[in-house]
Amino acid sequence: MTAMRSPCPIANALDIFGDKWTLLVLRDLFTGKSTFGDFQSSPEGIPTNILADRLKRLQAHGLIDKKPYQQRPLRYAYELTKAGRSLGPVLKEIINWGKKNIAGTQARAIKQHCAH
Amino acid sequence: MTAMRSPCPIANALDIFGDKWTLLVLRDLFTGKSTFGDFQSSPEGIPTNILADRLKRLQAHGLIDKKPYQQRPLRYAYELTKAGRSLGPVLKEIINWGKKNIAGTQARAIKQHCAH
Repeated sequence: MTAMRSPCPIANALDIFGDKWTLLVLRDLFTGKSTFGDFQSSPEGIPTNILADRLKRLQAHGLIDKKPYQQRPLRYAYELTKAGRSLGPVLKEIINWGKKNIAGTQARAIKQHCAH
Repeated sequence: MTAMRSPCPIANALDIFGDKWTLLVLRDLFTGKSTFGDFQSSPEGIPTNILADRLKRLQAHGLIDKKPYQQRPLRYAYELTKAGRSLGPVLKEIINWGKKNIAGTQARAIKQHCAH
């Protein structure tokens, strides 16, 4: 962990998920996706190296866990921890805001509109 | 505006404020700050070029307006638009999450703990 920018919870939260991709991986986990391939199949087309980095960071910050689901070759399934699941209200409010303020976004529930 | 990554409101919202700094500028506006100097004085120490860029982007996306408050030299005061103010619930949920999940963040209301 690096030094805190300030004692502000917003600044510190943004140091964990303040980028264009991390909350999309969390969104995918909320919609039931769990594998590297699942996340790659999302419509935004996250680059492989960014996905690998974000999964490591989310695990380092205690927002996700991983467990092997296959041995040869070794493959992991990812899941939200309690801290990760508690980001649900943040995602919900971002969805509400996006639906109201960005033309062309799909006005459906998170489990439907972003899961492909 | 560039092409949408997907119809997902989360992805589109993150294309506007999914970075380490933009929500801090919005936080400052919510706490009553309004000038370039105000934003610069925040404890995170936003670099000048990033601040100028984020103010332009927030205005381009309709989240803030600017009005001159001094003529010589010309200086602007920034304020939240209705769309900008409607990000309040997003900030509130990020604060709630940060306070619960990040040790060392200050558990005070937004108008107090991040305004210096």
